[in-house]
Amino acid sequence: MRILVVNVNTSASITESIAAQAATAARPGTEIVALTPAFGAESVEGNYESHLAAIAVMEAVRAYREPFDAIIQAGYGEHGREGLQELFDVPVVDITEAAASTAQFLGRTYSVVTSLDRTVPLIEDRLTAAGLAARCASVRASGLAVLDIERDLRAAVDAIAEQAVRAVDDDRAEVICLGCGGMSGLGERVRERTGAPVVDGVTAAVTIAESLVHLGLRTSKVRTYAPPRPKAIINWDPPRARG
Amino acid sequence: MRILVVNVNTSASITESIAAQAATAARPGTEIVALTPAFGAESVEGNYESHLAAIAVMEAVRAYREPFDAIIQAGYGEHGREGLQELFDVPVVDITEAAASTAQFLGRTYSVVTSLDRTVPLIEDRLTAAGLAARCASVRASGLAVLDIERDLRAAVDAIAEQAVRAVDDDRAEVICLGCGGMSGLGERVRERTGAPVVDGVTAAVTIAESLVHLGLRTSKVRTYAPPRPKAIINWDPPRARG
Amino acid sequence: MRILVVNVNTSASITESIAAQAATAARPGTEIVALTPAFGAESVEGNYESHLAAIAVMEAVRAYREPFDAIIQAGYGEHGREGLQELFDVPVVDITEAAASTAQFLGRTYSVVTSLDRTVPLIEDRLTAAGLAARCASVRASGLAVLDIERDLRAAVDAIAEQAVRAVDDDRAEVICLGCGGMSGLGERVRERTGAPVVDGVTAAVTIAESLVHLGLRTSKVRTYAPPRPKAIINWDPPRARG
Amino acid sequence: MRILVVNVNTSASITESIAAQAATAARPGTEIVALTPAFGAESVEGNYESHLAAIAVMEAVRAYREPFDAIIQAGYGEHGREGLQELFDVPVVDITEAAASTAQFLGRTYSVVTSLDRTVPLIEDRLTAAGLAARCASVRASGLAVLDIERDLRAAVDAIAEQAVRAVDDDRAEVICLGCGGMSGLGERVRERTGAPVVDGVTAAVTIAESLVHLGLRTSKVRTYAPPRPKAIINWDPPRARG
Amino acid sequence: MRILVVNVNTSASITESIAAQAATAARPGTEIVALTPAFGAESVEGNYESHLAAIAVMEAVRAYREPFDAIIQAGYGEHGREGLQELFDVPVVDITEAAASTAQFLGRTYSVVTSLDRTVPLIEDRLTAAGLAARCASVRASGLAVLDIERDLRAAVDAIAEQAVRAVDDDRAEVICLGCGGMSGLGERVRERTGAPVVDGVTAAVTIAESLVHLGLRTSKVRTYAPPRPKAIINWDPPRARG
Amino acid sequence: MRILVVNVNTSASITESIAAQAATAARPGTEIVALTPAFGAESVEGNYESHLAAIAVMEAVRAYREPFDAIIQAGYGEHGREGLQELFDVPVVDITEAAASTAQFLGRTYSVVTSLDRTVPLIEDRLTAAGLAARCASVRASGLAVLDIERDLRAAVDAIAEQAVRAVDDDRAEVICLGCGGMSGLGERVRERTGAPVVDGVTAAVTIAESLVHLGLRTSKVRTYAPPRPKAIINWDPPRARG
Repeated sequence: MRILVVNVNTSASITESIAAQAATAARPGTEIVALTPAFGAESVEGNYESHLAAIAVMEAVRAYREPFDAIIQAGYGEHGREGLQELFDVPVVDITEAAASTAQFLGRTYSVVTSLDRTVPLIEDRLTAAGLAARCASVRASGLAVLDIERDLRAAVDAIAEQAVRAVDDDRAEVICLGCGGMSGLGERVRERTGAPVVDGVTAAVTIAESLVHLGLRTSKVRTYAPPRPKAIINWDPPRARG
Repeated sequence: MRILVVNVNTSASITESIAAQAATAARPGTEIVALTPAFGAESVEGNYESHLAAIAVMEAVRAYREPFDAIIQAGYGEHGREGLQELFDVPVVDITEAAASTAQFLGRTYSVVTSLDRTVPLIEDRLTAAGLAARCASVRASGLAVLDIERDLRAAVDAIAEQAVRAVDDDRAEVICLGCGGMSGLGERVRERTGAPVVDGVTAAVTIAESLVHLGLRTSKVRTYAPPRPKAIINWDPPRARG
Repeated sequence: MRILVVNVNTSASITESIAAQAATAARPGTEIVALTPAFGAESVEGNYESHLAAIAVMEAVRAYREPFDAIIQAGYGEHGREGLQELFDVPVVDITEAAASTAQFLGRTYSVVTSLDRTVPLIEDRLTAAGLAARCASVRASGLAVLDIERDLRAAVDAIAEQAVRAVDDDRAEVICLGCGGMSGLGERVRERTGAPVVDGVTAAVTIAESLVHLGLRTSKVRTYAPPRPKAIINWDPPRARG
Repeated sequence: MRILVVNVNTSASITESIAAQAATAARPGTEIVALTPAFGAESVEGNYESHLAAIAVMEAVRAYREPFDAIIQAGYGEHGREGLQELFDVPVVDITEAAASTAQFLGRTYSVVTSLDRTVPLIEDRLTAAGLAARCASVRASGLAVLDIERDLRAAVDAIAEQAVRAVDDDRAEVICLGCGGMSGLGERVRERTGAPVVDGVTAAVTIAESLVHLGLRTSKVRTYAPPRPKAIINWDPPRARG
Repeated sequence: MRILVVNVNTSASITESIAAQAATAARPGTEIVALTPAFGAESVEGNYESHLAAIAVMEAVRAYREPFDAIIQAGYGEHGREGLQELFDVPVVDITEAAASTAQFLGRTYSVVTSLDRTVPLIEDRLTAAGLAARCASVRASGLAVLDIERDLRAAVDAIAEQAVRAVDDDRAEVICLGCGGMSGLGERVRERTGAPVVDGVTAAVTIAESLVHLGLRTSKVRTYAPPRPKAIINWDPPRARG
Repeated sequence: MRILVVNVNTSASITESIAAQAATAARPGTEIVALTPAFGAESVEGNYESHLAAIAVMEAVRAYREPFDAIIQAGYGEHGREGLQELFDVPVVDITEAAASTAQFLGRTYSVVTSLDRTVPLIEDRLTAAGLAARCASVRASGLAVLDIERDLRAAVDAIAEQAVRAVDDDRAEVICLGCGGMSGLGERVRERTGAPVVDGVTAAVTIAESLVHLGLRTSKVRTYAPPRPKAIINWDPPRARG
């Protein structure tokens, strides 16, 4: 099967990192195709950028010319998953939700450790919208911008682990979700520091997408995610991917 | 003061209707400027169209060249209000929230009567995200598409009033919100049929926007709606409005 | 239009202060009439006093002989708003709810800073009853009695600002509501200290009452606030206002 | 021990009926003293009347000259319990809460069958304020005014039983609470019709008050129900009981 | 009447302590029969032990040969109460729920102070399942194992009181529940340290069981707790009590 | 990897059916080992039987002598998952939770269609305990006993499909979960009748267990599911499996 993993950021290096992380989870026979949006912010860290990314991600999938079996939206606390579910029949998996859903099987509560303080509300709202907030102990910010994480992994691990420890001790979390695409690959080091299982959204999403495809399940079209009604969309010729 | 009222649909006739409705509520000294997005769906009735409208509305405001004091997002159950709050300092009022917030002062519970069944979940999610769901008795669909309402007002009133009566009798609503920009102006006739106060989102939003400006209040920038961080937005040159 | 602003305390100086504050928000053509209850506690700071004020406020409005268009109950976390809505057809606006409802348009969450610790539960319960608790980050006490605020405004600002800062930093509030009628007029100084918008309940209530009247909206009479049934009320001859 | 059972209505016949019902539950050594408020509505069926009763009940207890060990507020969905808890140290038991609390030990969910439709919201709000709403399946109105129940018991049983059956079948209630002081004594007949246990608030409250006294427990004074602060209460000389 | 008080631990000394505590609350005419399960953990402090105790408690009651009027499950945060309600018609009272239900009559909020950190989630889940979580301010662990409490009462009081004080000051609890069967008898000393009422689950449960019996109320059999359907239970010959 | 799928019923035919269903979902390299409890009810349909099954399932796993990588508890709305998580380090997946968690990726809401009315509350409580209730539209009973389903599959499909259609139309479900182990294999026929995706708990659980093992994730031991403390378990020698 072929799974599209769509970065929400236009930074190609993050796409590469997400693709590599996804590949570590993919089973034999699963092809991971990582897409970078043709337009939008280098790194998405707020609502405007996320709204823009929502459309850019949808258009990136629409522009993809080969068949595919599932879509992963690889951003934390982002807008747009509902639109993807409307446009396509194949399963759509958001990494925020994939991580939370997986974490709930491993402990009674979970916390998310994310990048900047300003993204905390977006993640909280996404978890609430998805019906996954009841067992969320907290969403904590490490204070790191998305692009900072790439630049100094050691400092990133320290900052993330510090919040993870506080989530376990103070917020009574039992599982930690790494709440930023750029944190992929740091899980083992955070686990060593906290003693709690650490869930990475990208790898969790890959296994969930594979499972949904394997079980022959597709997005429900009975109401919310029914295909768009036929109508005029005017003046919209989205920017195309470079090269 | 000048209030921008931004239609989410690209249909100019709906913009005119919203502008006319807004004008009935505006106090002396308030100038209503109605904007139509430069791109997007003729009528927004689902997630993809709404995500596209979210960006189109933001770009419409960014493209507006004169000073303004407040923004009204004139669509029901739409995405994007958070992005507007980030981009601008002036108050932003969503008509779904304006109607609900106003209704709560008039009765213990309220219901929303909207257009199509598929928009019910969007409205429910918006009310939840805004912290206004606790006193929502129900969101009910009249079965009318947005553009149908314009075409046959008498039939529209019948369909809307039928659901409003059921909301009062079965769902124990005490106030009715008209949950579609196109329903503006039908309030009095629905009130006659139900005996319950009827709130129109556009006029409610105008008075709220006026009040926020009058009180000197602006969007909080301490966290969620802080301005976007400076960074590269690539390849994004949004379609401009016609004419 | 004429708006009755009814103090819940029998202290005339507080009535004057509320009236002055209301006047700053009233638009041209709005007459503010401030009423002091004929009986009850000098300053209301608990349940018994608030229950007594509930009746005293209703009787003060019943005793008022001129026409009026709206009623503002000018106390924080008080009982009685539901009774006013039953007795009268015009809109009734509680300042606790007015502040919260206004704050929700300005930020994702809000906190209330009130006077004494013992009034915190009353405010929490009022917000819950009104369906406005979901986005309330916290209700915090400054430790000041109502009458202390008048006596030393500088110390009051310090005590209030300290709690406001903690609300923003620790409870993740994005907007501050001043939760005591006596705090009216301190908003600007608290805003300077926190960087967050500050909402005053009295002025918020004035604009909401004006808007409801302007839109021709009145209290729903379909169920909860239907007029009292005709029946014998025995032995009740409420104390009348002095002078 | 002596338990004050305070009617919220000024109808002496209801006081007698409540006293008789309370007596059936009182253990040896418990003296039931039934009080009728000195002022207020013959029968309380709405917010204004309930707010007035709240004060009338408090004043009735204050006017009582002998020692007592507990207070029962014998009205359904009424305001005022919090004020009683502030004024007195002995346990205060509201019959709405007593019935719900008792019902929760007997089945997974309970419904309340009350008098008029307009009292449904008051009961719902009381249960929420008391933290007892989570297992409430529904509050249903029989359509009977309080005084109608006394007048035709057979018709009352029919109307109540019909709603009780619907509560069990449609709302999945497992226990029925009789939600009106005037329904005391009809429990057995309603139980026969539904097969579900029926809880009467007055008798439940008597046993709870007895138990609290027996265990030496008193109202917490650490915050919400601390005694009123010393201050001037002006112009308040409540009407005294007749005779 | 005869009330069975069933220890969840197989430690006979705890059974004796629970029996003695229950006896202090029993009214004249109430016979307390304390049962020790025939099998299971000496002290129950986790899920496996609690699941085993659930069955052991049910079998202990089934093995009891004399008539009885009510059952008290004397463990904090334990599984199994629902099964007892299915097997027997008489009222079943869980001490976790008895304490919370009683506490709610004494203050606006309550906290539970229990033994080990690992039992906190069990108590939280039990309160949620019982519909008693809304007014729970916190569940706090003293860090004491069940059997430690017996060994050093003075140290136990210190550890419990420390958490009780923090519950009142930091979590805004107004009543304290002693959340461990072994803490019975320490209430007065904890109350002295906090100023808040202290509720003991065992004595609270005795008075509630007595009241339910006194009122002629029994477990609802209309749905969740209907008797088990007749069917083969294979290979199950539970260990019998010693001696 | 080896996954233990443990039936909660002692009926060997149900074990076979569950094993066959599990096998349809298992990937190459996954060995499914189906276990039947050594004691307990032929078919579990209530709390007592479920409490007994909880222990029987744990003992069945303890008695298994080979290594294994994950455990599936194959019963709907059952007690005991928490105990399994305490006793073992490998992931534990409950089929009620597996189905709900999977359904949430496919539609905005889901309903569960189960066997008897009396099992509805158990499923609701399990979903709440697992933090999966927010998007549950309803739990509906088909009226079929567990063993009836096996006996007449055609009638079973009819009864289940009827409730599934009502869930979609009346309760606004978008995905259906088959809420009974015995319904495994009927998914496709129910899907044809409703147009909504149908999730089977057993197959969903197999893919989730495989994914957790594949990702190297194990049950968190930091608090709730820490291993039982060392202590005396007296008199407990569980019945062993036959043959």
